[in-house]
Amino acid sequence: MSTLDFWYEFASTYSYPAAMRIERLAAERGVALRWRPFLLGPIFRAQGWSDTPFNALPAKGANMWRDLERITARAGLPFRRPDPFPQHSVLAARTALALDEAARPAFTRAVYAAEFGEGKQISDHGVIGAIHAGLGHDSEATLARAESSENKDRLKAQTQIAVDAGVYGAPSFVTADGELFWGNDRLEQALDWATGRR
Amino acid sequence: MSTLDFWYEFASTYSYPAAMRIERLAAERGVALRWRPFLLGPIFRAQGWSDTPFNALPAKGANMWRDLERITARAGLPFRRPDPFPQHSVLAARTALALDEAARPAFTRAVYAAEFGEGKQISDHGVIGAIHAGLGHDSEATLARAESSENKDRLKAQTQIAVDAGVYGAPSFVTADGELFWGNDRLEQALDWATGRR
Repeated sequence: MSTLDFWYEFASTYSYPAAMRIERLAAERGVALRWRPFLLGPIFRAQGWSDTPFNALPAKGANMWRDLERITARAGLPFRRPDPFPQHSVLAARTALALDEAARPAFTRAVYAAEFGEGKQISDHGVIGAIHAGLGHDSEATLARAESSENKDRLKAQTQIAVDAGVYGAPSFVTADGELFWGNDRLEQALDWATGRR
Repeated sequence: MSTLDFWYEFASTYSYPAAMRIERLAAERGVALRWRPFLLGPIFRAQGWSDTPFNALPAKGANMWRDLERITARAGLPFRRPDPFPQHSVLAARTALALDEAARPAFTRAVYAAEFGEGKQISDHGVIGAIHAGLGHDSEATLARAESSENKDRLKAQTQIAVDAGVYGAPSFVTADGELFWGNDRLEQALDWATGRR
C-alpha cells in the first residue's frame, strides 16, 4: 500500500483545511497516512525569524486570512480567527504524539476545529483535556504522558526528522520515495505521487 | 463581461506557468484579462529584504525549484532554471508596458519561454530585441519607448497600483470588486470569483 507522511503544526492556518480533508482523499486513492505533528517555531527561529511571516508582513497576512475564509467557506468548514495568533501549539503537539497512532487523526481534527472553528485557546490544559474527554480518552493520563521528558524529546526528534526531510512550512507531505510537497493546495499532487501518478 | 487583473513579475518563477495557461482558462469562462507587469524588487526592499526568500531560505528555495519542475512537467512546458536567479526584470517589464495592450500577452509569454524554457538572459537587450523581431515588432522603436522617462514612471506607478491593491507577490489576480488572489494555484479560484462563482 502507498503511504504518505502528513506533517502538520497545530498553529498553522493551512494545516486546518488539510487535516479536515486528507483522510477522505487518501482513502479514495488507497493511500495510508502517517500523521506527524511537529513544531515550526524552532525552524523559524533557526532562520532568524521571531514571528510568523503572516504577522511580520501585513499585506501577506491580510491576504492569508481572506484566503482562509474563502477556502473554509468553500469546504463548508467553520472559521474563526484565533486570538492570539499564532497559538502556542506545544501542548497540542506533545499530546498528539503521546497518543496511539490510531487515535491521533481524530484528536488532531478536534484540536483544529476548536482552534480555527471555535476560537479556543489550544495552549489551555482545560481545552485539550475536554477534547480528550470528548474522544473517550483518559485526559489526565494522556496529559501526564504528553508532558513526560521522554515524550518532549520525541517531539524534538520528530521536528528534526521533518527538517531532515526538507520541511520548512506546514502542512507538508512527504512520499515514501522522499518527494516533498508543501501546502494544503499540493495535497492532491502529493497523493497522486504516492500512488505512482506523476 | 467579467474582468480580471493579472499582475506578474518577469523574474517570478510561478508567474511562468500562470502566464502560459491564463488566456485559455479565462477564455473558457468568458473573462477579459488585463495583463499588468510590475516589479517585486521595490516591494521586497520596502519589507527589508535584499533577496528573494527562495535564495534567502535554502530549504524553501530547493522545494520551489522541485515544485516548478513538477508543475511544468505536468503542463508540458519546457523548464530550465535561470542563472542568475532572479533575473533582472526591469527591461522586460518596461518593454511589456510600452507595448499596446493587445501585443502584451504574446510578448509576455515569449519572455517567460526564453527565461524559464531556454535559460536566456532577459536583461539582455539582444534577447528582448530578438523577441520583438520574432513577433513582428519594430525592436528599436519599442526599446526606445520602453526606456523613455515617461514609461519608466509608468512602471513605477503600476507597481504602486499593485501595492495599493494589496499585492505582495507574483503572480497575483485582482477582480473588479477588489478581491485579491495570490499564486498560480489560485488562478482558477480568481477566475471563478470574477464570474460570480464564490
